[in-house]
Amino acid sequence: MAQLPADILDRFAAIIGEKHVLRTAGDMARYLDEPRKKFHGIAAAVLRPDSTEQVSKIMALANETGTAIIPQGGNTGLVGGQTPDDSGTQIILSLERLSKIRDVDAAQSTLTIEAGATLEAAQEAAGEIDRFLPLTLASQGSCTIGGNLATNAGGLNVVAYGSARDLCLGLEVVLADGRVWNGLNTLRKNNTGYDLKSLFVGSEGTLGIITAAVLKLFPASQSRATAFLAVESPAQALELLNLAQQQSGERVTTIELLPRAGLEFTIKHHQTRDPFGEPHPWYVLLELSSSQPGNELANNVENILATALDQGIAIDAVIAQSNRQTEDIWAIRELLPETQSYEGGSIKHDISVPLNRISDFLEQAAIAVVDLIPGARPVAFGHVGDGNIHFNVTQPVGADTNAFLARWDEVNKVVHDIATGMGGSVSAEHGIGQLKRHLMPGIKSDVELEIMTGLKRQLDPNNIINPGKLLP
Amino acid sequence: MAQLPADILDRFAAIIGEKHVLRTAGDMARYLDEPRKKFHGIAAAVLRPDSTEQVSKIMALANETGTAIIPQGGNTGLVGGQTPDDSGTQIILSLERLSKIRDVDAAQSTLTIEAGATLEAAQEAAGEIDRFLPLTLASQGSCTIGGNLATNAGGLNVVAYGSARDLCLGLEVVLADGRVWNGLNTLRKNNTGYDLKSLFVGSEGTLGIITAAVLKLFPASQSRATAFLAVESPAQALELLNLAQQQSGERVTTIELLPRAGLEFTIKHHQTRDPFGEPHPWYVLLELSSSQPGNELANNVENILATALDQGIAIDAVIAQSNRQTEDIWAIRELLPETQSYEGGSIKHDISVPLNRISDFLEQAAIAVVDLIPGARPVAFGHVGDGNIHFNVTQPVGADTNAFLARWDEVNKVVHDIATGMGGSVSAEHGIGQLKRHLMPGIKSDVELEIMTGLKRQLDPNNIINPGKLLP
Repeated sequence: MAQLPADILDRFAAIIGEKHVLRTAGDMARYLDEPRKKFHGIAAAVLRPDSTEQVSKIMALANETGTAIIPQGGNTGLVGGQTPDDSGTQIILSLERLSKIRDVDAAQSTLTIEAGATLEAAQEAAGEIDRFLPLTLASQGSCTIGGNLATNAGGLNVVAYGSARDLCLGLEVVLADGRVWNGLNTLRKNNTGYDLKSLFVGSEGTLGIITAAVLKLFPASQSRATAFLAVESPAQALELLNLAQQQSGERVTTIELLPRAGLEFTIKHHQTRDPFGEPHPWYVLLELSSSQPGNELANNVENILATALDQGIAIDAVIAQSNRQTEDIWAIRELLPETQSYEGGSIKHDISVPLNRISDFLEQAAIAVVDLIPGARPVAFGHVGDGNIHFNVTQPVGADTNAFLARWDEVNKVVHDIATGMGGSVSAEHGIGQLKRHLMPGIKSDVELEIMTGLKRQLDPNNIINPGKLLP
Repeated sequence: MAQLPADILDRFAAIIGEKHVLRTAGDMARYLDEPRKKFHGIAAAVLRPDSTEQVSKIMALANETGTAIIPQGGNTGLVGGQTPDDSGTQIILSLERLSKIRDVDAAQSTLTIEAGATLEAAQEAAGEIDRFLPLTLASQGSCTIGGNLATNAGGLNVVAYGSARDLCLGLEVVLADGRVWNGLNTLRKNNTGYDLKSLFVGSEGTLGIITAAVLKLFPASQSRATAFLAVESPAQALELLNLAQQQSGERVTTIELLPRAGLEFTIKHHQTRDPFGEPHPWYVLLELSSSQPGNELANNVENILATALDQGIAIDAVIAQSNRQTEDIWAIRELLPETQSYEGGSIKHDISVPLNRISDFLEQAAIAVVDLIPGARPVAFGHVGDGNIHFNVTQPVGADTNAFLARWDEVNKVVHDIATGMGGSVSAEHGIGQLKRHLMPGIKSDVELEIMTGLKRQLDPNNIINPGKLLP
């Protein structure tokens, strides 16, 4: 096996001190596997710097020696973007010790924070000055701000607040050659040149190493109203979205679609209670939030539900009457990704389609996968307000898990073809990483790929930052 | 004087037909001057294509022949970005005939529109499907979507909806060599590669020619409440912003600061009525909007004003009780830029500072300019919710206009130094163009300028698209 020469590794170690370098397989293990266990890599070492200066020196040395650097945050990515290859010559650059809160500014409603801070730490820092950071993800306890920005993370509040890029005002980035771009802009408006920030956000660590960011904060929520509704079809979920947006304006902060199969899994594996007396084909989690205190939202949501029931948009509905009930409703949604694992292998998708094609997509995709693998169980859930569905497919009951998972690409192709045929995307929020690189030539024009390759060449001429990711 | 060879010009003409080519000084006049009459250029011709295909052929020929192309929309830019140099060899590419509405999609709340359509046409197209395009500018009757995006336009609703970039989901761009990048994404979420859209938006026509765009629409406003308040100081305007955001949440869609001098100009030159019985030092235009009908906003604004008066944040306040009164209040703000011209020369600034520095900035800048030019009259107004102030300085009464305007750079330097010393920007929303190019080395690091220059070189290696703009 190829190896990184020991003298080079020692030079990296000298930058940060030996105790922040992990060299043994055991020490590195948690950096080499990822949550879905689909990707596993081998690394020469894991470096754990705690300052931008150290990252800068590491990159300068990497550039000089042609060493591939794989940046890694909380290691929660779902497309293998944070995992090295199996050559053993790549170095993982863990940002997790670079995690200081640099500034919390109530007057500007901004948070300046280092890349390795967890999303939860960022949310808490905002909360301490009575502000709200709307980025909300299942993995928020362990994912990091750097990773969130590198992948332009989405999550549960996009319908109201946009994705990570929309929440970012500025960045500090260490370039491939070790130079530091200080783009820590805190201004809401600043039209002085190209939008470099947006270029690094979502580039999946292939153009530079994000070391710190300025995030936009919002007034803290003073009231929220959470409802769980049973609907006949995804089409009704969309009618409900329209109704809720009409009747409550900008206050729909979450609208999530869940299938019966998902609720059944949760009931079975987590002893969750079915909120309704009888089964229904689809469910919607609807939440309104406001920075105003008071009962207005409660009235809003009651009116929305009354209209929905009256007009036959919803079959049944419950409103959370306590924090406990709110948590119970959220648990149904939040347990869903995990709960699928108890039913065996699951082939994942992260598609988005135009809102008015969601129903067609779900119908066609369900038929297509069951056609391909009789007995396969579609568990499609997600951010219906953004047109973003995690169309996951659980193996048939009793099937061989490995044999089922071996058909991953085949199932993907069928589902992706349906999504792209509708003008949709094969990666709404998870990114490309290693998992979907091979799809790029099929979904991007030659012109776009050439521009992207040119940007990569300009910013990383020696191809040392996260090589083998994103670009085909 | 250098000239573009006639045979080359004829080849350009052949692409679009002679009747869409303007060659005489008289025909070209309205493309060569800009609104503030600060910049005047000379062009070899004005080309007026009406399709992306024609633009593509024009750029291919320009690239082949090394002809500089100056893209122009509604010619309303304030920094000379749309004006050719005085060599006579550059060609103006007017996008105004490329103005079709390609698609209006209620289900997705998107508008796909060509670059030369006016902002007003875009707003109307949104209105026809009961949607709202929040970009709102004084020049909306003549400025174009292409120009709005090329300059990342701001305007009167940024506090609630962001700038043009935030409203853009996708672009079609003709590259310097004539190739077309079709990036007309309509999806809310699509994480498949670098954010090329954000790179072209705000690049002031230096990286490619925007020929069409997909814009995000919002639910139409069903109610609004407009108030005009007298306040003692800019600090109180900010307290009012906080109060209004706390009490009405996401519904503050406009908050504008105006000085007494501005209102006086408007009263004098437009027979506007002073809304209050006596003069006050500063005024605030506050508007709340909602997609919900009903009286809630009226109650909101009444409560905000009552609290503001009660707590001494405002001295006096009026609420518009009719559409007519709403228009009257808006007229005071909208007439302000024009009204200054009746008082002689005006030296303009477009700064932004952190919100909590606005008061300090206004105080220090006013002292500094009067120090420099005794009798100079600061007329500072603008988008206080974004920290963006148009700190304009009107000449002393009776002074020589040309002599006053000759001190433009000197006054700019004093004002810009104060803004940048506070972490502010010298161009919040107007961009760099020709006017502020020379400032770039002072406000950008070498690293940032090198990245920007590299991007320009990659996308326009022959430096033919809008040369001499934006980059120092």
